[in-house]
Amino acid sequence: MSNLKAAIVMQTDFTKDISVCTMHGVCMMIDPELRIFDSTHDIQCFNTYQASTSLSFVVDFWPKGTVFVSVVDPGVGTSRRACVAKLKNGSYVVTPDNGSLTHLKKYFGVVEVRVIDEEKNRLQSTKECNIFHGRDLFSYCAAKLASGIITFEEVGVEYQVEEIIEHEIIPFRKEGNNISGMIDSADFHFGLICSNVPAKAFEEDIQYGDKLKVKITNVKEDKIAYEGIVPFCPSFGSVKKGEPLLMISETIQIQIAMNEVNMAELYNIGCGSEWKIVFKKCEN
Amino acid sequence: MSNLKAAIVMQTDFTKDISVCTMHGVCMMIDPELRIFDSTHDIQCFNTYQASTSLSFVVDFWPKGTVFVSVVDPGVGTSRRACVAKLKNGSYVVTPDNGSLTHLKKYFGVVEVRVIDEEKNRLQSTKECNIFHGRDLFSYCAAKLASGIITFEEVGVEYQVEEIIEHEIIPFRKEGNNISGMIDSADFHFGLICSNVPAKAFEEDIQYGDKLKVKITNVKEDKIAYEGIVPFCPSFGSVKKGEPLLMISETIQIQIAMNEVNMAELYNIGCGSEWKIVFKKCEN
Amino acid sequence: MSNLKAAIVMQTDFTKDISVCTMHGVCMMIDPELRIFDSTHDIQCFNTYQASTSLSFVVDFWPKGTVFVSVVDPGVGTSRRACVAKLKNGSYVVTPDNGSLTHLKKYFGVVEVRVIDEEKNRLQSTKECNIFHGRDLFSYCAAKLASGIITFEEVGVEYQVEEIIEHEIIPFRKEGNNISGMIDSADFHFGLICSNVPAKAFEEDIQYGDKLKVKITNVKEDKIAYEGIVPFCPSFGSVKKGEPLLMISETIQIQIAMNEVNMAELYNIGCGSEWKIVFKKCEN
Repeated sequence: MSNLKAAIVMQTDFTKDISVCTMHGVCMMIDPELRIFDSTHDIQCFNTYQASTSLSFVVDFWPKGTVFVSVVDPGVGTSRRACVAKLKNGSYVVTPDNGSLTHLKKYFGVVEVRVIDEEKNRLQSTKECNIFHGRDLFSYCAAKLASGIITFEEVGVEYQVEEIIEHEIIPFRKEGNNISGMIDSADFHFGLICSNVPAKAFEEDIQYGDKLKVKITNVKEDKIAYEGIVPFCPSFGSVKKGEPLLMISETIQIQIAMNEVNMAELYNIGCGSEWKIVFKKCEN
Repeated sequence: MSNLKAAIVMQTDFTKDISVCTMHGVCMMIDPELRIFDSTHDIQCFNTYQASTSLSFVVDFWPKGTVFVSVVDPGVGTSRRACVAKLKNGSYVVTPDNGSLTHLKKYFGVVEVRVIDEEKNRLQSTKECNIFHGRDLFSYCAAKLASGIITFEEVGVEYQVEEIIEHEIIPFRKEGNNISGMIDSADFHFGLICSNVPAKAFEEDIQYGDKLKVKITNVKEDKIAYEGIVPFCPSFGSVKKGEPLLMISETIQIQIAMNEVNMAELYNIGCGSEWKIVFKKCEN
Repeated sequence: MSNLKAAIVMQTDFTKDISVCTMHGVCMMIDPELRIFDSTHDIQCFNTYQASTSLSFVVDFWPKGTVFVSVVDPGVGTSRRACVAKLKNGSYVVTPDNGSLTHLKKYFGVVEVRVIDEEKNRLQSTKECNIFHGRDLFSYCAAKLASGIITFEEVGVEYQVEEIIEHEIIPFRKEGNNISGMIDSADFHFGLICSNVPAKAFEEDIQYGDKLKVKITNVKEDKIAYEGIVPFCPSFGSVKKGEPLLMISETIQIQIAMNEVNMAELYNIGCGSEWKIVFKKCEN
């Protein structure tokens, strides 16, 4: 067990297709002993906010030292930095520095970050191609790092963690009866809508069975997307099919959903700083 | 070869996304030597009947001792049992006991079943979260079992195999010229509609080239979904594009499909005990 | 490292489902030490042209000796050959001989090809089933080859490389100001439309920033699908959202796309010899 190399875990907005296959292959060419895993490849195209929440959701469930590769890269071929971030727990993220590190930087801890040296840590046989750093740069560099061919220091020149690009985040707030925050993720499959309000914000005053007024607003368009009275429940089974509920998410945050209905789709709700959510406990 | 640990094979209704990624990660934290495979993650949401047929379809093509994880779990957080079933061939299934074991119990053989002890075999760091037993309980317990950290006996308390929850099944019948049964699966991709009639039911009387009257009924709605005269053929290539055919399925059962057309979608046909199918050989 | 077995890389038109799972399982039953990877399982149903370009795109990014399995098999159960092709770099492709080897034969190099001996290299327990050679024949044979149980010679009888079935290909041409070719792939996800014109065809006369007249024609229907003036750019970031651009593809060919818009879908463009594309440099 002790001589196993770090796992590589990939997320992209490519869907699982031949492009991802070449990312795996490039790793295998560098070191066939590497173990490669796929996280999601269904991140919404170019959605670097979702890339950021997705990364922050998974890192804590993988062993320390894991090398994450994130390729949601609308700026590929422009001057955005390609980097490797070292996290507080010793794991790494290989990614364009374009907002994809927002949540890890803010909440998990990035201790050091380096620009990838394209002379040394890029596949040289595809130099003519500027549009696929996922294969040619990020996977190639991640494989060298995970296999121990290069150290973190040999990735490239360090820069200040403070310079890492961040998305705007509306912090959650608790004022009297009002708890507010933003939408962190709106899952396309079950339609779960997860806020950035931590479960502990509910701890003191709100119990399973309590009802809350919930309002979701698109602040950019100044439009209410959803408004309703919703019970706080342990799980889906607590309400009837089609009924809304509040619950604690996989990420230990407050989320809203409907039992067996895709709520995100039904109300056309997305994620990011334009989506505000407010909870207010109803009087008994 | 002899010191390789059992493979883990996962199926869920999550699609392949970050949730599945954390299930893999939890296994890697327990033992990085484990080998993890994905079956389908596209089971129809909450469809425990499909979970059951999907499991029964794959178990026989994996080495004895494989640990299957099935998470189609509409009742997560309620009192449904979380269990590990030991199969006749020595493989295991880690699953909510909610009908997902129906076909394995009935046709393959479950020799023993145990409730998972949540004190010992659950991830403790996420105790606040009630909605993701796929990660916190099923994967965690499966990894401990596959890596040999716990024995099957240490999973938890045994209960009677007879108590395992089963879906209703309409057994296939042969009466004179009539062969009848139910729809076991209606594949969303190619639209193959597979009955629970075993191929051997055709053996004596029906040969390639023979034509049969086929009727598919939704008994709950008392509605005929499809009716037609269909040839029994070795494969798709035997009929023209768009034409129906009967053939022997991957599971060695009788299935109906159309060449290069999604028949399940076209006739809106699903699976389970509400879907009856009848075959009758035409006179020459 | 030296005693690692060849990797197996699979592509199909099955989507990633229980059928693919049984293909993995059959390999595990033959040798649990095998390492199995998925390329895409989202090839358009029965599109053997796409199977061919997809294979030719990935083979060069995997170590020599890799065993590729390709199952896009509209003729399963008919007399089409099931074969293993040995490539110039020592890798193998296990596939129906139905056009799926077109590009590898023409551009990469197939040095030898053999019919799979179904007596020796087919799973015997599923002989009744004629419709799933992906599991019963191709995966089974690939696993035996990758694990070293059989040599390439033991796959079956050799036949002439010249006999390998090929799709029609319209070769790219350069005549004065006109460069023409066909569409090699029209990606369903980002909508990238990749021609078979190699990047070097642009090298001498055309530079980033130059504008070109582009015309895409469906020659079978004699209909112009797209016509426009498009700049040649290093990457997406060079044009505004919704605007078209020409760039060098992952495969170092000339492709056309729109920034953050699915161009293939918008103009309903497919791939194969019925899709012709012409580029003409605009005068300054």
